[in-house]
Formats: sequence, structure tokens, C-alpha cells
Amino acid sequence: MSTTEPIEPTATRGPVHVVGTGLLGTSVAMALTARHVPVTLTDVSPSALALARDLGAGTVAQPEDDEPALVVIAAPPDVTAELVAAQLRAHPGAVVTDVASVKQIILTELQQIAAQDEQVDLSRYVGSHPMAGRERSGAGAATADLFIGRPWVIAAHGASTSAAVLAIRSLALDLGASVATLTAAEHDAAVAVISHLPQLMASLTAAQLAGAPDHALALAGQGLRDVTRIAASGARLWSDILSGNGPAVTQVLHQVRAGLDDLITAMDAAAQEGPLAPGAVAGISALIGAGNDGVARVPGKHGGAGNRYTEVGVLVPDSPGELGRLFSEVGEIGVNIEDFQMEHSPKQKVGMAIVSVMPQTATKLQEALAQRGWRVVAP
Amino acid sequence: MSTTEPIEPTATRGPVHVVGTGLLGTSVAMALTARHVPVTLTDVSPSALALARDLGAGTVAQPEDDEPALVVIAAPPDVTAELVAAQLRAHPGAVVTDVASVKQIILTELQQIAAQDEQVDLSRYVGSHPMAGRERSGAGAATADLFIGRPWVIAAHGASTSAAVLAIRSLALDLGASVATLTAAEHDAAVAVISHLPQLMASLTAAQLAGAPDHALALAGQGLRDVTRIAASGARLWSDILSGNGPAVTQVLHQVRAGLDDLITAMDAAAQEGPLAPGAVAGISALIGAGNDGVARVPGKHGGAGNRYTEVGVLVPDSPGELGRLFSEVGEIGVNIEDFQMEHSPKQKVGMAIVSVMPQTATKLQEALAQRGWRVVAP
Repeated sequence: MSTTEPIEPTATRGPVHVVGTGLLGTSVAMALTARHVPVTLTDVSPSALALARDLGAGTVAQPEDDEPALVVIAAPPDVTAELVAAQLRAHPGAVVTDVASVKQIILTELQQIAAQDEQVDLSRYVGSHPMAGRERSGAGAATADLFIGRPWVIAAHGASTSAAVLAIRSLALDLGASVATLTAAEHDAAVAVISHLPQLMASLTAAQLAGAPDHALALAGQGLRDVTRIAASGARLWSDILSGNGPAVTQVLHQVRAGLDDLITAMDAAAQEGPLAPGAVAGISALIGAGNDGVARVPGKHGGAGNRYTEVGVLVPDSPGELGRLFSEVGEIGVNIEDFQMEHSPKQKVGMAIVSVMPQTATKLQEALAQRGWRVVAP
Repeated sequence: MSTTEPIEPTATRGPVHVVGTGLLGTSVAMALTARHVPVTLTDVSPSALALARDLGAGTVAQPEDDEPALVVIAAPPDVTAELVAAQLRAHPGAVVTDVASVKQIILTELQQIAAQDEQVDLSRYVGSHPMAGRERSGAGAATADLFIGRPWVIAAHGASTSAAVLAIRSLALDLGASVATLTAAEHDAAVAVISHLPQLMASLTAAQLAGAPDHALALAGQGLRDVTRIAASGARLWSDILSGNGPAVTQVLHQVRAGLDDLITAMDAAAQEGPLAPGAVAGISALIGAGNDGVARVPGKHGGAGNRYTEVGVLVPDSPGELGRLFSEVGEIGVNIEDFQMEHSPKQKVGMAIVSVMPQTATKLQEALAQRGWRVVAP
């Protein structure tokens, strides 16, 4: 665990009570504890709770604790609304938030509960979603740095007080996140297209590999690796997230099916009548072109456009220190590396380092690296 | 352009005649010229031909040239078979190959031509496919290093002589590629699933972004970037490739549509009846699980399993030399970096370097980096 010294004054007022000591809850607790905010913890699993406590996330909640000013619910989506309601009842002075990955279904369920129970005062509830998932889960994977630089969506609703919204905003900023304010419905539609859809498309692609022959997999390149990487994510977590965002995900999936049907029409024509079949090339081109337009909108580094860097390829022997030597020399040449990836070749003891730099520095870098004996190649 | 000194004896016997001076043809020519094999060039475009010549790829073919021992056709798939046939007729002593991305349709067309024209002697023809595409095209993007470490599929057919197969095998090995031998049909089915499918799924995903609101794109993370990266590829090239592989691609797409339909059934249930609708969670889990199984088969570095490294995250300030300093220190610590990627946070002047290392070295690296003052975080 790395410790984090507070750089700016901490705005969050404690005590903070964290319900659920998985990855997100424990990370929130660790970050607040590092900022000297008192944190109490609870979890349905005594062993998960003990682990979070032992990792220094906070103290186990006791009946005699001071009333919390803020409660953070970090539990699976399907139990979140009930937990939020229980905490609103138990702590009439506290602001309550949750960090679940879906927002509308929780808000709707809470509104139904509140309509029957005036102790469930939704003016003190503000939903939120720190977008800081990891492939690993649980307190053991938690870190106080988890939220630094990540988006944290605040999904206020009509009845939230501005004081409650401000408390969650302060929490997100204290933890280093960048805040985005959306309605619950806007949030759910946004994550359906930018998070849930790519996950499902990666899984649909990867699922086709299960039955592919070994000689096909041996030809896999970086494109396949990129498209399928997140297909390694866990089924349980994703089933919860996706089933809780049914309406928004379904809408996107029906649009994708329409696009796939158009593509299949074009490809079936090519398969039956040959590449020059009427509509074949036009149908394929239309999809690739639409993809070109869409990917151009994906933000790259620091929120800028995705493709504004020039890539320089360098062959790097596979031995300790070689990549370090490359980066040191790039630094000596005076060029800043904006992005970087390694592309590995099967069965070769050499990798291709793809260094992304500002376009005006690319030629200088290529020439200087070649002079120093590096093999500069096409990325 | 980088020059390449031959490391091993060159097995390819010249002169080699290259038909088509785009990216692949010019790169083949450059690599052979660097190995002192005489290369003649031709192209339907005089300016493309002049560019390749000026880049040092070879000499422009003349009527008085010596007969070539080997002809390489590097033209779009839809004209390749005619060009192969013409070269088989023109050079009765030469072995002829092509480098098109689809193989069965070309072989079938050639067999039809050969059935009517005994000068088209297919025993001297061996199809091949060097899998070394780039996002840029044309002679200007060519490099002698293009094929190093890339798979080069040799798609021999029943009538190919072993001498002809050996000539193409020597060419691929001389250029640094790793050779895979498949039938044309095996090749086409393999690239349909490991290359054409990911391209189409990336495009289908990215196409949904065209109409998404700005606030959704602002939440984009590394998952979306990975899944959609190759959606930036050119429509013209891909239309040619895909329309030429209709039967194999269509088969995979119909399987994907069946998977998508199952998913939509599950998601529609969740949308209409809530997350606990019968079949919803099971349907989603089945897809994510199938994706887990598939992605586990994707080879990683050096042909090994994809997920055998441990990732270590390090926060790196965005200034020249910082990444170099990190890599130098990793080298000093004595740990070899197996893979690497940068994850950038919108609006933050800091990036997260994700360093993949052998599992047994991860703890040592984390501790040593933390001691040296780096902020080691969860990747």
C-alpha cells in the first residue's frame, strides 16, 4: 500500500462511515484515513471487514461511535438501495451516497421506499459513481490512490440539497477524482455506450475464439489483443452491473444489432455472389466509415483528440535495462513521450516499442535514435 | 528509412520482380535490396513507382531485364489473380507469389484461368500473406523492417511444387518473418476470426459513439480506447479485404449474431422485469464466461499465454525524462519489463505507467520503486 500525503486542504468533514469494504469502499476509506478524516467501517463479511481494518482503512464501527457526517455505501448494485435507505434512517444528520455503477435503478427503488417511509429523507442522498474499476476486486486490491485522475460522476436528483451535493463533490475532489455532474438517466445511458457496450463487444469477440483452431490463434496480432483485453473481466461483477442497467444497455444493443444486420446483408452478398456483388462494398465501407467517425470522438490523453501524436517504432532487444536505456536516451534527446506501447512478436526475442510523440518532434527523435544505433522502424 | 544489414545468409535467389509498389511491395523490395538481391519494380501508377525507386527499393523494370527467378504480386485482392496469371505467362521460369490478405478467392480464380490457359502453370504459384499491415499505406510508409517478427502465412495448394514453396519460405525467412503453413481455406477462416472479426466489432462499437453526447465521451476509459482503436483503419482497404473473404467472414458474423441475440434476450428481460428477471443474470454470465475462455487463448508475448504477468502501476509526472527515469530505475532494480502501457487521466498532468513483470519479481519491484520515491499504485 502506498501512503498519500494530503497536498491540498481536505474539504470532507468526518466522521465518515463506509458500508462495504470491497475494492471501492476500502479505497475510499484508505484515502480519507490518509487525509486524517475519521473513518468507521462495516461489512456483511467479518473477514472482509477485518482485512480492511488491518490494511489501515479505518476502525470497525461500534454502537458508541459519534454520528457520521457522511455515509458511503459501497455494495453490489442489487442491495444498494436498501442499504442507502437504512443509513438515511439510522443517521438523520448524515449525507448518504453510494458508489454503484448504475444509478437510475437505485434512485427509482429509493423513491419507492421514500414514498412509504418519511424517515428515508432523499434530500440527504446523492448517488455517485467513481469510474475506477480494476480487474482485481476486494479490499486486498484497494489503494488510497485509486481515484486519482479518474472521472467521478455525481448523479444528483431533484430532491438533493445543495449541501448534500457539495459534500459528495468535496469527497470526490479530496480523493483526486475529476467530477462530472449528470442525471441518473444521463449517467446510465453514458456508461451503457462507453463502458458496458465495449465490455460486451469484447466478450462477443473473445467468445468466438474458444472454438478457433490453434493455428488461427497463432496469427493473432495487436488488434485482436486490444479488442479482447477487457473480455477477461469477471462474470459476477459484470452480470450485476449489466442487469442493473437493462433499459440503457438494451437500447444500445438493438442499435448494434441493426448495424450488424446491415453488415451481414452486405457480407452475405459478397459470400454468395462474390466481392463485386451489388451493395457488398458499399455496406462494408459504410460501417468502417461510421467507425472512423466514432473513434475520432474518443478522447486521448488529457482529454484531447485521440490521434494527435505521431508514432515512432523502435526495435528493443528483450533483456533487462534495454527499455530503460531507450527511455533514458529519449529523455536525453529532449523529447517528451506522450504515450507508449509495446508490440511483441511471437517467437522473437525482440519487441517493438511504439513511442507516441508530438508530431513536430518525431523526425528529430527518429534521427537521433538512429544515430545512437537504435533500429527505428515503422510502427 | 532504416537500413538493415543482413545477419544471416540470404536464401532468396534473384532477380525478384515486384508488381505493385504500395506498402507491402515496396517493403519487400527494400528488404531484398538491403540484402543485395536485385529487384525490379512495376506499378500501374507511375508516381507510386517513381517514389519506390527513389526510396531505394529497386530499379524500374525494363524489357531488357534478366528473367526474374521470383515474382511478388503486391496488389489489391480484386486484381491479384489476373496479375499472377499474367506473370506466370510472361516468365515461364519464375516462381510467383502474391501477398494479398485473402487467399481462397484468388486461388479459385486462378484455377479457373489455368483450366483455360495452359501457360498459366499453377505449379509455380504459391499464395502467401505477410501479416504486417499498418494504419498508413503506400510506398512512403514502407520499411525494410516491416516483416520482422510478423507471421507470414504460406498458403500452398495441391499443385504447388516443393521448389516453389521453398522459394516463398526462403523469402519470408530472409525478411525476418515467422512462417506458418496453411491451406487457403484455413488461412481465410483463421483471419476471419482473428483479424476481420475484431476489425468489424471495433467498427460496430465505434459507430455507436458517433451519436453519443459529449458528456458520455468524457467518461471514456482505457477499455473503450482499446476496443475501438483499430476502428480508425481505412474503409477502402478493409472493404477489399472483407468482400474478398465473404464466406469465412459471414460464417463468423452469423455466430456473433446468435450470441448477440442471446444477450439481447437476457438484457431485454432485465430491462422489462428488472435485474432479477428469469434468465437475465444467467444469460449475461454465460457470455462473459465464454469471453473469459476465449481471451485466455490469445497468445501474449513470445507466443505464451496472455495473462502470465503481474501489473505494477506507477504514477509518472508528465514532463520530459520522467518515464525514462522510471525505466532506468527499473533496470537498476534488475527487473525485466515484459510489457508496458500508459493510462492517461483526463485533465491531469500525470499518467499511470502500467509495468508488466514476471509475478515473482512484482513485489521486489513495488518495494524498490516505493523506496526510491515513486508512487506505486493499483494498475
